[in-house]
Amino acid sequence: MAVYTVIEDGELADFLGLYDLGQLLSFQGIAEGVENSNFLLRTERANYILTLYEKRVNEADLPFFLGLMGHLGAAGLSCPLPVADQKGRVLGRCAGRPAAIVSFLNGTSAAYPGTAKCQALGRALAQLHEAASDFSLTRPNALGPESWPGLLASVDRDPADLPAGLRAAAAEKLGEILASWPDGLPEGIIHADLFPNNVLFVGDQLTGLIDFYFACRDILSLDLAICLNSWCFEPDGSFNITKSRALLAGYESVRKLSAEETAALPVLCAGAAMRFFLTRLYDWLNTPEGALVKPLNPMDYWAKLRFHAHASGPQAYGIGL
Amino acid sequence: MAVYTVIEDGELADFLGLYDLGQLLSFQGIAEGVENSNFLLRTERANYILTLYEKRVNEADLPFFLGLMGHLGAAGLSCPLPVADQKGRVLGRCAGRPAAIVSFLNGTSAAYPGTAKCQALGRALAQLHEAASDFSLTRPNALGPESWPGLLASVDRDPADLPAGLRAAAAEKLGEILASWPDGLPEGIIHADLFPNNVLFVGDQLTGLIDFYFACRDILSLDLAICLNSWCFEPDGSFNITKSRALLAGYESVRKLSAEETAALPVLCAGAAMRFFLTRLYDWLNTPEGALVKPLNPMDYWAKLRFHAHASGPQAYGIGL
Repeated sequence: MAVYTVIEDGELADFLGLYDLGQLLSFQGIAEGVENSNFLLRTERANYILTLYEKRVNEADLPFFLGLMGHLGAAGLSCPLPVADQKGRVLGRCAGRPAAIVSFLNGTSAAYPGTAKCQALGRALAQLHEAASDFSLTRPNALGPESWPGLLASVDRDPADLPAGLRAAAAEKLGEILASWPDGLPEGIIHADLFPNNVLFVGDQLTGLIDFYFACRDILSLDLAICLNSWCFEPDGSFNITKSRALLAGYESVRKLSAEETAALPVLCAGAAMRFFLTRLYDWLNTPEGALVKPLNPMDYWAKLRFHAHASGPQAYGIGL
Repeated sequence: MAVYTVIEDGELADFLGLYDLGQLLSFQGIAEGVENSNFLLRTERANYILTLYEKRVNEADLPFFLGLMGHLGAAGLSCPLPVADQKGRVLGRCAGRPAAIVSFLNGTSAAYPGTAKCQALGRALAQLHEAASDFSLTRPNALGPESWPGLLASVDRDPADLPAGLRAAAAEKLGEILASWPDGLPEGIIHADLFPNNVLFVGDQLTGLIDFYFACRDILSLDLAICLNSWCFEPDGSFNITKSRALLAGYESVRKLSAEETAALPVLCAGAAMRFFLTRLYDWLNTPEGALVKPLNPMDYWAKLRFHAHASGPQAYGIGL
């Protein structure tokens, strides 16, 4: 739940005056997203999202994020398209914050997407990887494997409300993951945060990929691992291999995985689970009580980590070598 | 900023299944309104607002509020129209809360509306009063003059961050207002909270009156007084008689004020200011620190009260006897 910055009437009018969107019909803050302030903007021309970038997003990264969305959109992917102002700029300032207007996408996200949606997501993810391959800008993964030991070290005590000895157990698992981290797998631009809440559907038809604010360069199949973690576990914690098989089949219908990528799936999935476990563990300890955004329990990702550590091989995900 | 209740996918699908709105295209929590949870619902048919009523609204009052909106809409007023489900019911339950779907209105609200908007507001207010005159349900004004002494008594100390002796000064003013409170003025259904944020415009054209959750039966021109207070003072605290004249002229273009109503304007305005001063004073003392909704400073309404106490007569509002 967000909307951190309030926009005054005059500021909005001044900002919209730089664009060519027609008469404003309605304007509402959206109670979604935790990084930025988002507003639904309806004009006689179309619906748009106005985003004000809050402090958690590095302003220097915005040309990469907005450029990537524009590039993917031009390649036919359904993602928010940055709208240029009358001078051709896609990044401006409003209410003292960096601001951009993007196209509005139809669709709603599903908390627990079914098999058909998993297949569609796999296909779209591969299309994203293919379409981004000739994008000229790049951005390192600030939350890649190199960052994980430091992240764990920054958690200076075991949270009282989580199992005792959690940090020591995590350090051991992290050592194992880094020791077997794959080398030489195909890299490219990945979304890096393609959770179900960032994918829109109308019925089972995928209508949009959103929230590119973690996109970066890393191993392509790490993105697949992030999706397997966030799309294929059931509410009871069990892994749904039918959904996983569908997601991977969808992906491979566009981009075939090499034998090396397939073989690396268990460790990539474990690493992806470690990354989200660590950031959630950090937030769990460091979010003040009563904060607007409640921290997510890191133990969900600890359970996924354990699943991957015990996976017999890629066949545990419904894919052969 | 609101959205208190989270709706799960299944709950939303079940609830929408009772209606006949076509395929869902998008669904977003709106960061507006402090009483209820509001969601923008777009389907292939139209845009709607889904409201979940939170604890501050008395469930027994909902048939009155929804019935009033339906009645006013049928009379041609631009207000949210309750949408009936397949069984003809406008009030249902979703995510454990009373819930209703209403039509979406175009327009944005202005923090400081200009003269043309004030005139349009006056006209719409009179139309509301006329259209509601044959509405069959009623509801007493829980925040009418009878409630003010009790409200003041419930403030058990002077807030440390407001002028000393504030409660004693308020008790004196309140005594004066109640002693000269008019008798026998025309009564009817009033909106009772028609602040600028509850009125939508596209350009200067009024496109909607919203938020009927304080509507009740009381003196009609008390509604006018509430609007004079919330629409005609400038940011610097000065009263803008040009806006006031326009608001009153707009009102009288539809419904003429009697000599008694006109003469009573200063005391009605003082009473209306007292009502908002008192509820804001109460909230100022009783809102926990760090609450989602910051309390409004009651001193703004204290300043309006002082203006009305010194008004020479209705001519101070730009209207003759």
